[in-house]
Amino acid sequence: MEVHFLGTAGGVPSPARSLPCTALKRNGSVMLFDCGEGSQRQLMMSPLSMMAVDCILISHHHGDHVTGVPGLLQTMSLFSRQRPLRVFGPTGTVAMMDRRFSNHDAEPCYKVEVRDLAPGDSFESDGMTVLAVGTDHSIPSLGYVLREPPRSGRFDAEAARGLGVAEGPLFSDLQNGVAVEIEGRVVSPEEVMGPPRRGRSFSYSGDTRPCVAFIEASRGVDLMVHEATFADDSIDRAAESGHSTARQAAEVAKQAEVSTLVLTHISPRIDDALTLEREASEVIGTRNVVVAQDFDSLRIEYPE
Amino acid sequence: MEVHFLGTAGGVPSPARSLPCTALKRNGSVMLFDCGEGSQRQLMMSPLSMMAVDCILISHHHGDHVTGVPGLLQTMSLFSRQRPLRVFGPTGTVAMMDRRFSNHDAEPCYKVEVRDLAPGDSFESDGMTVLAVGTDHSIPSLGYVLREPPRSGRFDAEAARGLGVAEGPLFSDLQNGVAVEIEGRVVSPEEVMGPPRRGRSFSYSGDTRPCVAFIEASRGVDLMVHEATFADDSIDRAAESGHSTARQAAEVAKQAEVSTLVLTHISPRIDDALTLEREASEVIGTRNVVVAQDFDSLRIEYPE
Repeated sequence: MEVHFLGTAGGVPSPARSLPCTALKRNGSVMLFDCGEGSQRQLMMSPLSMMAVDCILISHHHGDHVTGVPGLLQTMSLFSRQRPLRVFGPTGTVAMMDRRFSNHDAEPCYKVEVRDLAPGDSFESDGMTVLAVGTDHSIPSLGYVLREPPRSGRFDAEAARGLGVAEGPLFSDLQNGVAVEIEGRVVSPEEVMGPPRRGRSFSYSGDTRPCVAFIEASRGVDLMVHEATFADDSIDRAAESGHSTARQAAEVAKQAEVSTLVLTHISPRIDDALTLEREASEVIGTRNVVVAQDFDSLRIEYPE
Repeated sequence: MEVHFLGTAGGVPSPARSLPCTALKRNGSVMLFDCGEGSQRQLMMSPLSMMAVDCILISHHHGDHVTGVPGLLQTMSLFSRQRPLRVFGPTGTVAMMDRRFSNHDAEPCYKVEVRDLAPGDSFESDGMTVLAVGTDHSIPSLGYVLREPPRSGRFDAEAARGLGVAEGPLFSDLQNGVAVEIEGRVVSPEEVMGPPRRGRSFSYSGDTRPCVAFIEASRGVDLMVHEATFADDSIDRAAESGHSTARQAAEVAKQAEVSTLVLTHISPRIDDALTLEREASEVIGTRNVVVAQDFDSLRIEYPE
């Protein structure tokens, strides 16, 4: 599982930062979180394949988060995409997609499933559960929390041999949850498999003030991407405009017991991203905070 | 007068080419011809000032030519623009602007004048005449031809001195068209000024098949920007889709007696822009053709 930061600006792009777009790659499929103007070209410049994008999750309908959708859909159609595409977002997403910018553009040549999600809605994507969480921005907004199903426990080969099981097909049976019979005695998987291990997990805040629902839904995720539009000196402005400071984002991550926090949605007014990193680090330590730059990527490993 | 090529792709962007946007800078004011996705960031990366953009002229409503408009307008508002902005284009431009992509974005804090232009309409912009020309694309489309008013003729200082006029304020009077009296004799401006000289001129085709109306309206312009979506090998495809090949663009320029032709709207299918340059050069010579790259700029000098 890899997270790619394709656009890390907030509100307004800069020469260094494109508008919001975060990509999660898993099993060859890519999910986008927000799709600001320029996302299709950022995808082309990244190691990701545009055609692998199977789902676009919108956090809210401010232009900087959605203006890249029509162009991306159109380009995938010009490239003769066949696979269906999902575009899900908060209330109003169906209506927004119905009045896409130019009605002179052809309908995509592939199926586009558009859905309005309510806070608390969840759906499956390639075996993973995606939960939409109501967040606290100036207009209806959602964060997203993704969790893989638990993996089977660790196989204890020594224990299996001790029970007389020979290495080979019988090992596979036990690993796949099937009991085997050895000289009249049944060896059950539970005797040789450890407890189930949790899958990987990820959360994305979208634009929001610090939000209890997002903290609760994100508890213990391997990686949290949280907006950090402002530094400490603009904490009032953050509250007024429905955003967070870097320090507030770190407090969210700390309360959710998240060890890796990536800050994005960086205002063009922030001259020095190190300020954000320093202020967040004071809450959860320097090793646990990254201020994303465009084209940064991070791997999410299976938990031990 | 400078022409800046901010986006030179056709249909689909590439890592090297952003979607269509050509800028004309004159007297500190910038006019954009088309405004594809990513134009605001291209402007930020160029030597031009985004806030100097006073007019956006749309050639037609295919997404690749207009998806950059909402983001640019929004960003200029976030930057507290005061000056009014014009957004003119073919029929449907007012309706398109009314249903801009996201209705959660605030109305701009400056006045936006939106107008549908019909073929043959013209308007003044900072003393320059802008003519909208009906072109031949797959949907209603316009090209634009811009001409400065004639400049006054050359002042003949020797002749003025010969008529007894002393250098200084009287020279200025004559240059400004005011007769002066020297020892009882009237010296008229016509005696010391050469014939009026034509101003600078420029034309932009937008997306079109080779088009007689555009040839006629462009006659003798100093610089023609013409689309060249295809090479010779796709001439049928160009005709079907309402586009031109590089060779056809050169024929248009030749018939319009234009000496400098810049090709833009380059399809991502064109691996090697040199092919386009070669095919166009066979019509009007290598010194008269440029295949635009993003961030190229050219000056238009006053004609001799």
